Amino acid sequence: MVKSTPSQSSSTRIVSYAALHRFTARAFQQVGLSEADASTGADVLALTDAWGTCTHGTKSLRGYLRRLKAGGLRPEGKPRLAAEGPAWATVDGDSALAMITSTFAMQTAIAKARKCGIAYVGVRNSCHYGAAGCYAWQAAREGLIGLSMANDAPSVAAPGSRGPITGSNPISYAVPAGRYRAILLDMSVATVAGGKVYVAQTRGEQIPNTWLFGADGKPTTDPSGYPHIGALQPAAGHKGYGIALLIETLAGVLSGAAITRAVGSWMLGDGTQPTNHGAAFIAIDVNSMISAGKFIQRVESLVEEIHNAPRAEGVDRIYVPGEMEWERYDRSMQEGIALPSDVVSSLEEAAKLSGLDLERELE
Amino acid sequence: MVKSTPSQSSSTRIVSYAALHRFTARAFQQVGLSEADASTGADVLALTDAWGTCTHGTKSLRGYLRRLKAGGLRPEGKPRLAAEGPAWATVDGDSALAMITSTFAMQTAIAKARKCGIAYVGVRNSCHYGAAGCYAWQAAREGLIGLSMANDAPSVAAPGSRGPITGSNPISYAVPAGRYRAILLDMSVATVAGGKVYVAQTRGEQIPNTWLFGADGKPTTDPSGYPHIGALQPAAGHKGYGIALLIETLAGVLSGAAITRAVGSWMLGDGTQPTNHGAAFIAIDVNSMISAGKFIQRVESLVEEIHNAPRAEGVDRIYVPGEMEWERYDRSMQEGIALPSDVVSSLEEAAKLSGLDLERELE
Repeated sequence: MVKSTPSQSSSTRIVSYAALHRFTARAFQQVGLSEADASTGADVLALTDAWGTCTHGTKSLRGYLRRLKAGGLRPEGKPRLAAEGPAWATVDGDSALAMITSTFAMQTAIAKARKCGIAYVGVRNSCHYGAAGCYAWQAAREGLIGLSMANDAPSVAAPGSRGPITGSNPISYAVPAGRYRAILLDMSVATVAGGKVYVAQTRGEQIPNTWLFGADGKPTTDPSGYPHIGALQPAAGHKGYGIALLIETLAGVLSGAAITRAVGSWMLGDGTQPTNHGAAFIAIDVNSMISAGKFIQRVESLVEEIHNAPRAEGVDRIYVPGEMEWERYDRSMQEGIALPSDVVSSLEEAAKLSGLDLERELE
Repeated sequence: MVKSTPSQSSSTRIVSYAALHRFTARAFQQVGLSEADASTGADVLALTDAWGTCTHGTKSLRGYLRRLKAGGLRPEGKPRLAAEGPAWATVDGDSALAMITSTFAMQTAIAKARKCGIAYVGVRNSCHYGAAGCYAWQAAREGLIGLSMANDAPSVAAPGSRGPITGSNPISYAVPAGRYRAILLDMSVATVAGGKVYVAQTRGEQIPNTWLFGADGKPTTDPSGYPHIGALQPAAGHKGYGIALLIETLAGVLSGAAITRAVGSWMLGDGTQPTNHGAAFIAIDVNSMISAGKFIQRVESLVEEIHNAPRAEGVDRIYVPGEMEWERYDRSMQEGIALPSDVVSSLEEAAKLSGLDLERELE
């Protein structure tokens, strides 16, 4: 259902979750995915847009379709357990769409955590998996604590490096919170997302000197050369860098995936070749350890303490991680998802790539 | 062995690891700990000083001794498994010295991870556990990946709060690295340690406006009221805050420990009462999942890639997390541990509290 008038590619559009999901799933099916796999991919991307995280939702559909057509992603790819033990598994993604592999991996972690209390699943032969929070949420939705993290082609510096060392290496966790929405953090290890640098670049604007290191490895206000020149600054310096290496270890080193420079760029790299991204998923079954009621009661009390805490001057609310996303989600479900113009343009290209008529599909 | 001339309490001293360990263990025994428990406590505190992390080593001995004498810590306390499953356990610390409880918990996590691949152990009824890295290292020393985290009495703000919401909530991980020293990150979720604010306070200096929020919840350069007024700023804003809440969940909510404001202040609080700190330990047995040789080879390659990466102008080295600590450790073991004057003063008080002659003990 399109609530705004269809228009040129540069305007924002309001689209229902159902229509966006349907279009995304159809586009995936058009390039060879099974109905079930296509639906899994659409679940992740449409949820991400519904949260308002539109940098990581259906905006990437175009890129995934290109790879699925070029062969770097395999439409018939099927993630499989490469090895497993009581509370762990390694999943070979078979170069399938990463949303399929990641969902399979988190479901595996959830099932094993229910038996053992906690479980780790490492993934190799995957690709860009979108918003880390989608998979953490898959665990929290079922009453478990979920963690999700992935490596990526390098874009973030280490303290003292000239050029990038690690990927933006996203990490997310989600905690079920009873009568409140799940606590949900989804962050990269860089000070800001590369997307913010691109926006400034496009607009010809300067950036704060805390975002990027330039060609000499020093802070710069000039975004013009990114990503070919410079590297994103790690969040909180050595702390962001240190967390990036933990993620690289769990998602890349331990899973057998590519590491740092060996990870292909899913957007800029050769679409015919796999990127071999890695990822890691951890599920913790709180019900094994403490009664679910007691755990939820304690989380609710933590949330209330934060909501009721004294606020700084001029501050209306103190947010629990994820609250902004869940409020956007509710609005998206009631009023439709507000897709920024860059996403609309990208969907138009995705429609072309998959031989669909975007206007008809989104009706 | 004391290499410098014993002097007034305000000077730095060089002390051998063996002498510092012996004094610390004897002091613990003097207030009622068993020989084995006293040695465990000394292991942790002397290692911390050997790393050069002197804010969290034997400087705290005085405070622990006070609590052990007052009853808030129980000299005869024995941590025990309160509940357990295949890959998890909850440990009741019985208000024992936290180094004993934390070591017991990490050893439990290691044993369970060897059977299941990964294990989580939550701790309640504990106290300030010192440097988080000591326990992560206990796992890495045995070839596993270790994670260690704890909650604490609130000192760190949430974005928008006036006053603290979470503790400094330390988190550490350690990864075995073959012919290199273990990768080791030990960080708090605040921009800087509270200790740095105290130093500026003592010296009557201003601080950068990124360290502290003042009485109104806004950034301040005035450290004079801390910790009674103001709160530390979370590292990287909502990211540090979000990680703080993950730690609070795993170390406090899930373990059954006190949460946020209910955690006692181990330094400023009533020494006769338990603080009920929580902690969490995770061990991952890489040997279950990938041959140890292959894992180590991949970590070594990651370390070498970082060492050999292009450097920013004026930078001599790019450090892997923990390298600075390990280099200080090697120097400490060869030349003795350099204890700053505040640690020396604190040890003199610890000697008085335990009825020992510091000079004789450190000879």
